[in-house]
Amino acid sequence: MSDGYRVGVLGATGLVGSTIIELLGSRGFPVAELRPLASERSAGKTIEFGSKVLTVQAVSEESIQDLDLVLSSAGGSVSAEWTPKIVAAGATVVDNTSYWRMHDDVPLVVSEVNPDALEGHKGIIANPNCSTMQMVVALKPLYDAAGIERLVISTYQAVSGTGKGAIDALRAEARAVVGGYDMPPAEIYPHQIAFNVLAQAGNFPEGDDHTDEERKLINETRKILGDAEIKVSATCVRVPVETGHSETVNVETREPLDPERARQLLAAAPGVTVVDDPAAGRYPMAIDAAGKDDVFVGRIRRDPGNERALDIWVVSDNLRKGAATNAVQVAELLIQRGLLARG
Amino acid sequence: MSDGYRVGVLGATGLVGSTIIELLGSRGFPVAELRPLASERSAGKTIEFGSKVLTVQAVSEESIQDLDLVLSSAGGSVSAEWTPKIVAAGATVVDNTSYWRMHDDVPLVVSEVNPDALEGHKGIIANPNCSTMQMVVALKPLYDAAGIERLVISTYQAVSGTGKGAIDALRAEARAVVGGYDMPPAEIYPHQIAFNVLAQAGNFPEGDDHTDEERKLINETRKILGDAEIKVSATCVRVPVETGHSETVNVETREPLDPERARQLLAAAPGVTVVDDPAAGRYPMAIDAAGKDDVFVGRIRRDPGNERALDIWVVSDNLRKGAATNAVQVAELLIQRGLLARG
Repeated sequence: MSDGYRVGVLGATGLVGSTIIELLGSRGFPVAELRPLASERSAGKTIEFGSKVLTVQAVSEESIQDLDLVLSSAGGSVSAEWTPKIVAAGATVVDNTSYWRMHDDVPLVVSEVNPDALEGHKGIIANPNCSTMQMVVALKPLYDAAGIERLVISTYQAVSGTGKGAIDALRAEARAVVGGYDMPPAEIYPHQIAFNVLAQAGNFPEGDDHTDEERKLINETRKILGDAEIKVSATCVRVPVETGHSETVNVETREPLDPERARQLLAAAPGVTVVDDPAAGRYPMAIDAAGKDDVFVGRIRRDPGNERALDIWVVSDNLRKGAATNAVQVAELLIQRGLLARG
Repeated sequence: MSDGYRVGVLGATGLVGSTIIELLGSRGFPVAELRPLASERSAGKTIEFGSKVLTVQAVSEESIQDLDLVLSSAGGSVSAEWTPKIVAAGATVVDNTSYWRMHDDVPLVVSEVNPDALEGHKGIIANPNCSTMQMVVALKPLYDAAGIERLVISTYQAVSGTGKGAIDALRAEARAVVGGYDMPPAEIYPHQIAFNVLAQAGNFPEGDDHTDEERKLINETRKILGDAEIKVSATCVRVPVETGHSETVNVETREPLDPERARQLLAAAPGVTVVDDPAAGRYPMAIDAAGKDDVFVGRIRRDPGNERALDIWVVSDNLRKGAATNAVQVAELLIQRGLLARG
């Protein structure tokens, strides 16, 4: 026990939090104590960690004491309030909400892409947004080889990014369609999502013609790649898929980059699996990516309209690499680099 | 009766053919005789037209005689064989397959976009591919105002474009997921489509890294707009939607074009309905477009990465404007312009 860290998981009962707990076990993270934390509403529930059954505690001034690390995936307002208190109490926080991501003194880290950004952290490390995360893992080797001038991105985002309620809603709506029942009222999304697609993932901030999800793709991509000059068009679309975000990305590089060379670079890149024999029906798919940690890339080809652009298709489990896996990988990097203090 | 035309519908039992027959009735097309034609396999089935019940005839040298107009939506190989024979027998053919579309002496016509291409036709008029059709209706007013330099297109295509069997397969797969049954084997598509998306709509011609569907978007767009210089990137994706194709289109214009001006142009364009108040949850959706004839456009905005580009979201019923509606509109134009001979 004394070899491990005292780890809090805030938002322990959510889809991402429960995946984090599963990964801490399956990856053999050195846990001396696991403390599941959540809102008052979820306190008292139990979760399993290995052979133990643990009771979820409400986040409070008391329950955040004596921790080394907190992996947080409660909402942005919870992070806004509690992250500074947790840091003040002595723990390092890897935060999966959007709240801290664009703060200048908070590193926004994808483990394969910009691990050096962890150096000199001030107690908070932000975990990027799911749709950005998987994309930058695929873009990094292309960026290093040829630079990136411009991206045109369209997403096909699964409902599990919205939470358990969205999976339930999708299934209930699908059941209504195939069973001929009355359609339940849309409560999670503005409209029916089953057998439909919505040109809205996220919300529209006052006066903005892009959703916050689209702004994350634009802004977080630049911050993670450390290049404010990258031009980005983003349309984020919700599709009736349970888990696994898919994305088309038109990548205009600064220097010429051949598709075959891009394929080699991607095949050699950490965290990437190339699945690219489309004539044989082999390309990345959400149902294949679900439950896996890698980012899957296929349909790698020259844009016939631009000799300096490639078209690629990027798929990953939004709860895994898009959220929980990267959070745990960042925590592992903190340990490897001696950047995680033990109280 | 003598005021009307003798109209054959080839492929009368398919999704597009049956929609054509419905539209001939609902639009009051001047029909003196309606003759449903299909393959040997479907001969003997009955279809309704107004108050009549008609028996489907197998397409043959005999059954194509004494017709003025044939609206054809059987497969490409059927069109290859029978269209010249039908023309030789005296009828004009509006063909919905891909077979004739890129032939130099066959006009490829979208009723709102390039009706003048009908002049001087030689008996065959091609109806464009569904995903191209709806897009060019939306692009035409932008093209006329500012030219189009480059398009980056990602589609979200419904299964009904593949036929009735694909709708049945989607429903059977969805039933398996929500009911916890065994997943039926994928027979229509290479993989499960329910709760999944496939980076493949159409097939990969030998040696091509783009599907035939993607090539149609590239080539047909240029032919319809009459501009071989337009650069096009296209990724065609199948989504678990029954009817209604959605598309993200990044439109780089040659001259500057303000999003508000684009919105005005689109609102005034024939065949287009602008649905664009996204913060209020108003944007085009497949489930709203299904059963309607218009092309719906929303999310009209400046690409934040390119001051000469707009991002738009285009949705239409792939069986209606994407196929049957345009075929009937083309036939109506032929009459209006005195281009449809009556035997």
